Order: sequence, then C-alpha cells, then structure tokens
Amino acid sequence: MLAEIITIGDEILIGQIVDTNSAYISKELNKIGVKVYQITSVQDDRDHILQAFEDAKKHADLVIVTGGLGPTKDDITKQTFCDFFEDVLVEDKSVIENVAQLFKKYQLNKPLPANFQQAMVPSKATVLMNQYGTAPGMWLEKDKVVFVSLPGVPYEMKHLMQEEVLPRVIKRFNRPHIYHKTLLTYGLGESAIAERIANWEDNLPNTIKLAYLPSLGKVRLRLSSTGNNETLLKERIDSQMEVLSNMLSDIAVGFEDETSIVDRIAHILNQKNQTLSLAESCSGGAIVKQITSEAGISSFFLGSIVPYKTELKTKLLGVPTTLIKEHTVVSIEVAESMAANCCKLFNTDYSIATTGIAGPTKGDAVDEVGTVCIAIAAPSGVVSEKFSFGNDRFRVIEKTTNKALEMLLKEISKN
Amino acid sequence: MLAEIITIGDEILIGQIVDTNSAYISKELNKIGVKVYQITSVQDDRDHILQAFEDAKKHADLVIVTGGLGPTKDDITKQTFCDFFEDVLVEDKSVIENVAQLFKKYQLNKPLPANFQQAMVPSKATVLMNQYGTAPGMWLEKDKVVFVSLPGVPYEMKHLMQEEVLPRVIKRFNRPHIYHKTLLTYGLGESAIAERIANWEDNLPNTIKLAYLPSLGKVRLRLSSTGNNETLLKERIDSQMEVLSNMLSDIAVGFEDETSIVDRIAHILNQKNQTLSLAESCSGGAIVKQITSEAGISSFFLGSIVPYKTELKTKLLGVPTTLIKEHTVVSIEVAESMAANCCKLFNTDYSIATTGIAGPTKGDAVDEVGTVCIAIAAPSGVVSEKFSFGNDRFRVIEKTTNKALEMLLKEISKN
Repeated sequence: MLAEIITIGDEILIGQIVDTNSAYISKELNKIGVKVYQITSVQDDRDHILQAFEDAKKHADLVIVTGGLGPTKDDITKQTFCDFFEDVLVEDKSVIENVAQLFKKYQLNKPLPANFQQAMVPSKATVLMNQYGTAPGMWLEKDKVVFVSLPGVPYEMKHLMQEEVLPRVIKRFNRPHIYHKTLLTYGLGESAIAERIANWEDNLPNTIKLAYLPSLGKVRLRLSSTGNNETLLKERIDSQMEVLSNMLSDIAVGFEDETSIVDRIAHILNQKNQTLSLAESCSGGAIVKQITSEAGISSFFLGSIVPYKTELKTKLLGVPTTLIKEHTVVSIEVAESMAANCCKLFNTDYSIATTGIAGPTKGDAVDEVGTVCIAIAAPSGVVSEKFSFGNDRFRVIEKTTNKALEMLLKEISKN
Repeated sequence: MLAEIITIGDEILIGQIVDTNSAYISKELNKIGVKVYQITSVQDDRDHILQAFEDAKKHADLVIVTGGLGPTKDDITKQTFCDFFEDVLVEDKSVIENVAQLFKKYQLNKPLPANFQQAMVPSKATVLMNQYGTAPGMWLEKDKVVFVSLPGVPYEMKHLMQEEVLPRVIKRFNRPHIYHKTLLTYGLGESAIAERIANWEDNLPNTIKLAYLPSLGKVRLRLSSTGNNETLLKERIDSQMEVLSNMLSDIAVGFEDETSIVDRIAHILNQKNQTLSLAESCSGGAIVKQITSEAGISSFFLGSIVPYKTELKTKLLGVPTTLIKEHTVVSIEVAESMAANCCKLFNTDYSIATTGIAGPTKGDAVDEVGTVCIAIAAPSGVVSEKFSFGNDRFRVIEKTTNKALEMLLKEISKN
C-alpha cells in the first residue's frame, strides 16, 4: 500500500523552517510496511491544498497531512477539509473537555476562549485526541482513501502518530513487509567504496536495492527489500549485508538504527568499565552535545571542557605556554598535551582533544582556515593527526566531530 | 514568477534523511523575488520523476531538481532528464578537466576512472561547473520552463546555487519583490500573543500576511508582502512591524535574519566589553554548541565546562559538597554556586549554569524528569529559576538552552 504526506505552510516554502515532520512520518510508516510514494509541501492556500488532496488521492491509500491547525488566524486547513469532504465544522465537546484538562494539568489559570476554534471539527471526522496540545488530529475517509490531519508542532504530531495514527493504520490496511539494513562507514568516500564493492553490487539480486548515503566523512550503505514473507526478507538482506560488511570491515562502524557511533563507543566503554572526557577547542562543544544527546551515557562519560580562549588551555588544562609558543596553538603537540592533561583532570581512561581554526577567518593563526588537530589519549598512550577540513565553519566543526569519534572508536576497539 | 523544487531520493521517502536542501533553495529564491509554489520529494524511479517534471511544468517557470547525481549506481536522474528532453548523454570534456583539477587540488593520487559517468551530460544542457565535487549541475529549457539539476550534497548544491543558478535566474526572469520581516519573541505562547495583538491583526491591510511560527519557548511572527515597488513594500511592512514590536516589547528579542539571540548577546557584550563563560550540566553542551556555531564570538566568549558527573561540580567548579547534600544537585542553590564559581574560574563578567534531569529516567534524583535549574551570574549578583520542562530528553535540552539564553539576554540588557 502507498501513502503520501502533505505538509501545509508558507514557512516551509519560503525556507523559514526545515520540514522535519515528513522524515519522521515516513520512517514510522516504513517500519509498519507502508511505502511513502511522495511528499508534497504546499502553501496555506485553499485551492492549492485542494489540488494536492486530489493528486494524492490518485496514488495513495493513506494521505497524512500536517500543519495548518494552530489556534491563530493564518491556518485554513480545517475549512479546506470541509470543502474537500463536502462537510461542515461542528463543535466537538470532547475536544473542549480535553483542552480544559490540559489547562488544569499545566496550571494555566485562564478560562477557555469564548469562541474556541480548536473545538470545531468536520462533522464526518473521527477526532484523534491530542494529549499535548489544543489542536486535535482528524481521521476522514473518501472513496476508500484515508486522510489524516495532524498538527504541525513536531512533539504533538509525534505523539498523535504513535498513540492514534499508527495503531489505526495497522488495523485498517493490509501491508507487506519492508526491510532495510544500513551499514555505517567512516573514513572512505562514496566512489572509493563503490569501486571496491563493484563486483558484488553487479551481482546483487534485483529484489534487493542498494543506496549510498554520503555525508561529511561518513557514508551509509542501505540495502532494502519488500515482500510478504518477513523471515525470508530478513534472511535475504542479512546474508548480503554480512558479505558487504566483511568487504568493508576496516571502515564499518556498525549498523544504523541498531547503533550510532556514540552507541558503539558507549557499548565498548561500558563493557570495559572505562571512562571518557573531552577537551574541545575548535569543535566548540559539538562532540559533547552529540554524546549527551543520547540517554544513558553517564556510566562512562564524565564531562568536558571547552577552552575556547588560548590562555584557558594553559589555565584549565595545564598546557605549557612554552609548548604553545614553540608549536602554535593549532598543533599536534598542543592537541596531545590537551588530551593527556584532560585525562588527568577528569581522571578518565580516554580523552578526545581538538584544536583548530573553524573559520571563517584565521585571525592571527599561522595555519589556514580548516586546519584541525585531533588527539586521543588512551591508557596505551596518545595518538594524534592533523587535518585540512576546508573553509566552511559548519563543515569544519561537523568533520572534526565525525573524525574525532572515529579515531576514539578505533582506539577503544584495540584488543 | 513561480518556482518548484523537486528532490529525488528514496532516502527522503523512507525518512532516513531530512530534506534540508529545499529549505535552503526556497530561502535563496525568495530573497530574489521568486515565489516557491510547491516542494515535491519523489522516488529514485524514472516514471515518478517524469510525472513530477510534467506536474511542475504546469505551474512553474523554474524547476529546481536536487539529488540523483552521485557517482554510484542508485542514481537515475540524468537518464530521466534525457527522456524528458528527448535528448542523449554526451561526454563533456570540461567536466573531465574540472574533476582532474579537483583531484589535483585535493592531492588525490589516482587517475580518473576509465568510464567516467560524471562527465556524461544531456547534449542540450548548459553545464554548471561544480567546484566542490565531481557531479556537475545542469540548466535545461523546455517550452519556456527552465529546469535546473543540482547534486544532492548540501555543500555542493549551495555553492552551485550561489555561483551559477541565482545569477542566471536574476538575468533570465523578471521578478517582483517579496519582503518579509520576522520578529523573534521568547517566553509567551502563540495563543497568548494572538490574544494580545488581536485588534491590530484584525485591522492589518490585506496586502500584508501575518504568520505565527512557534517552537519550544519561542514564537516568531512573520509579516510578508509582495509587489513591484521595493521601497513601498519595506515601508509598509516596517511601519506595521514597529507597531507590533512595541506591543510585544517585553518579549521581543529582535528581528530574525538580522539577528539571532546569540547575535544580540554578542552585540551587547561586545559593546560593553564584557565576557561570558558557561557551566552546563543537564544541557550537556547544547548552549556552548549554539554559541560557537556562530562566527566571531571569541571576542566575548571564553569557554565552557560540562561537569556531567556530580563530583566534577565540586572538583572543577568548587561547588561545596555540603551544599549539594543539603539541597540536592538539581537545586537553585547548586545552580547559583556553579554560575558564581564559573565566573571566577574563567574570570568572566557573566556565566550561565544549568543543572537538571534531562531524562528519560530520573536515576537516583529526588525531582522528576524535566526539572531544570538555571542560574545567571552577573556583576550585580546571581539570578536563578527552577523549571519543569516535561519528560522528553531532546525537548528538555532545547528548552533549557532557549530559556538560559533568554535569561542571559535579560540580565545583560539591564543598563
């Protein structure tokens, strides 16, 4: 079965916000065997929305619409649903009751507005109660195609997907199985990987699709297959994935969804009962943010220092001023000293240290913008490397983060 | 004039990546007066791409297509362009020359592949040379509609947009002016703002559009207008924006695009010649990352400590163990001590400190998940506040970051 996603909002079409809702909805539908045929972003405009509804209905069994349900006046989605379904808006008492409960829960001491627009829904709609906001979701059907309307606020949309939409879709539609497995690799480019696995790729059965997903120092390789027999699908993909990961064992980090690089690092450090700290200069907190974004890291991660100013490298981390003078602050020597001293300060087994010039200007630095030194301090000693990561600040920080985690993983994986 | 954006790639439709390219392209087109009618994401499938091309041609004068140009075998865009334009692929010598130069520049010691697919382009296409990657962009025309094909790698796409596409669009099309101005507010919800400005909103001339863009503790309010007289447009919007920002002066931070909250903070601290440091526990580096993402912050920002483990709050920041025992680690008292001591350690005028329970579990904490204490140390003393930010780790970290920056801005704005 096929689904389409329609996101409504001028803010998307003028580039003011990035549409993250579609990616979330696609991923969740995919997990339950629903293939997304197309994603369409349209304006807050009645005729345009109606046209998108008509087009989607041609291909899809399920159309999920987000956005255009806020309490304020720029939203016209609900009225357009009425036009499309030849329906009228009626007041739904359960929505009023739900919002009153929410107000009470969050101790908002104010009465509901007299003319409470959020409680007005198309009479033919099944209301999907929103436990985290005032705009309800809606489930409507026309010529056997199901239309679902969800608020655009990601948090509310996600809860409605999990609690209301997915269970109803599972009940309502027969779906095949879709199985993906994605190998995460670090350190080799897309073309180089393609060259190495060309023979194998040429001989892949046509029931299996391979996709390359490159981004800043990492390449993800996805194998996909669709069918009715879940066990067979899994076997088919898993056996090919085993061949692939063996061919790429020197650059493979693990499988995505199962594991991120931080997961892999956490797993190994927890197993060894070892710990980690960070001293980030040019990466400016990007590594610590990536680590602390994942839950359950306090077992091995102790903390981080961002000594952005040069003198703080000396004051907080004890990097000798003579070393900085002799080699400059962006040097292998300073990175190694930062990493070794960071281990001592935090009393950890491992430390990552970064120092470099993220740009856009080089200030009074000797090296060019994009020069970055990364050091990993380990019980066995300190390793380090110097890189040129180009002249784009955002990319320099991203590449430093990816490379540093890759280097750490390599070190902690030894014996 | 109208544009459409088509992004090609199964990875978007299975939710493996978020389509950030469309937001970038929309924003850039908007700046030069090109309105984006629709954004459509389609599969790596010939028939589907052809259908999207046909549909786009009905509305748009300009169709920008991204993705499907990589060196590997999952990409079919170029062949589909040939089908649509009744054309054939021919080898373009200038692409080969360009890639050879790139290989030389990045000191890749390898010859070009014998069968170099990237150099094959439709014979009717104007090649847009890619200075940062091997896949060239293409510019084609059919029935007065311009189709542009760009690689999906964001960095390469952005450079091609700036250096090739936008200058050509400006030359090729007559465009009206589009003017937006967006007010950034912190601390009040969408409904509450709407209530406060209802009278004004009701009386807005219908040439001006107002949109509410809420997200985690901040609401952006956008005014837009389109026309041929740029001066008139600006005057029209600016005068309404002045009224609006006066009505919301207690929650307005500044205008977006002109200024982010970090920009505002940088501006004030630079003017006062004052400095900032951070002690982030539960926000785990999210604040330092947001600050260091912007260029030119080293004039006022000295550094940050992330004392993730409780004992590090004592060891690195000198928070007394008795204080932690008496009030627990997630307390106003501990946050205030962290902030005050952070100022001393880094020798800065201001410090932000955060301590809380980001979740998903509360561990051995006394308070519930989502409890966060934020303190700001200033020359005039320390202010602090305790919050409940809900039980979603990602949102707790985001809300902590937004609230902490809002509290800091308030403090540094006091004469």
